[in-house]
Amino acid sequence: MKHTLAVLVENRAGVLSRVASLFSRRGYNIDSLAVGVTEDPSVSRMTIVVHGDDNVLEQVTKQLNKLIDVIKVSDIGSDDAVERELALIKVAADVNSRAEIIQITNIFRARIVDVAQKSMTVEVTGDEEKILAMEKLLRQFGIKELVRTGKIALSRGPKKV
Amino acid sequence: MKHTLAVLVENRAGVLSRVASLFSRRGYNIDSLAVGVTEDPSVSRMTIVVHGDDNVLEQVTKQLNKLIDVIKVSDIGSDDAVERELALIKVAADVNSRAEIIQITNIFRARIVDVAQKSMTVEVTGDEEKILAMEKLLRQFGIKELVRTGKIALSRGPKKV
Repeated sequence: MKHTLAVLVENRAGVLSRVASLFSRRGYNIDSLAVGVTEDPSVSRMTIVVHGDDNVLEQVTKQLNKLIDVIKVSDIGSDDAVERELALIKVAADVNSRAEIIQITNIFRARIVDVAQKSMTVEVTGDEEKILAMEKLLRQFGIKELVRTGKIALSRGPKKV
Repeated sequence: MKHTLAVLVENRAGVLSRVASLFSRRGYNIDSLAVGVTEDPSVSRMTIVVHGDDNVLEQVTKQLNKLIDVIKVSDIGSDDAVERELALIKVAADVNSRAEIIQITNIFRARIVDVAQKSMTVEVTGDEEKILAMEKLLRQFGIKELVRTGKIALSRGPKKV
């Protein structure tokens, strides 16, 4: 099963390495990971997407909680959360295809952030499915480069994670 | 000095842990990290923002290149790159403050992605400065939660990273 973990950690050197090794020691492949500072600069928040056995994940969560740099671990259910990801896609574009790419961009409420002679770069945010759908549509023109942030999530409503 | 590294890696368990430990062993604190799959599902792209001594970073880069799972490492200069980050900000909101929050959201070309009785969640993309500016403006209402993806970057124009 797929899980999204929100892990609040102290913003110190080595924390990421310790957290990542907890997963890798169990052969858990991290699907995506996003780390950034929070409203408190001394605290970072990691959003980790993994899929695997629930019991093993429970073990990992327990061990995460034991790490001195870890402040809090929450498993965010996707039903009750706002989930977003950001992707930058550089797509091959010439005079003929440019109009169609702009059209697709508008339909997806995405944004064109760079134009060069033979390419355009599109910024798109959304859940995984939206980004995949956009990627699929742009593939016909030729995708030169693609970079994704990995998912971040916040619980809906008042509940604080 | 601040550096943004784009690291293409094989999408396998343990890669992240090996990459992260290369940095932490030298006391290098990673400012932000984003990992997601690329157009090729067997390949992930890590965008790592670090600041520190240039010589040490050169050493780290060399050692990254030696890792068997690492396909390519590039240092993306910020002058010549499109840099973006995504943040979700849950801000306290009541009937009185809602209109003002919507106004700020529009000015920043951000989007409201969830509304609850006492809060609103805003999605904003941009460079670091834009996100900080938005955060600063929303702080007056009370920020309940904030999560950031970390920066991703693509070189401008035709050059392939």
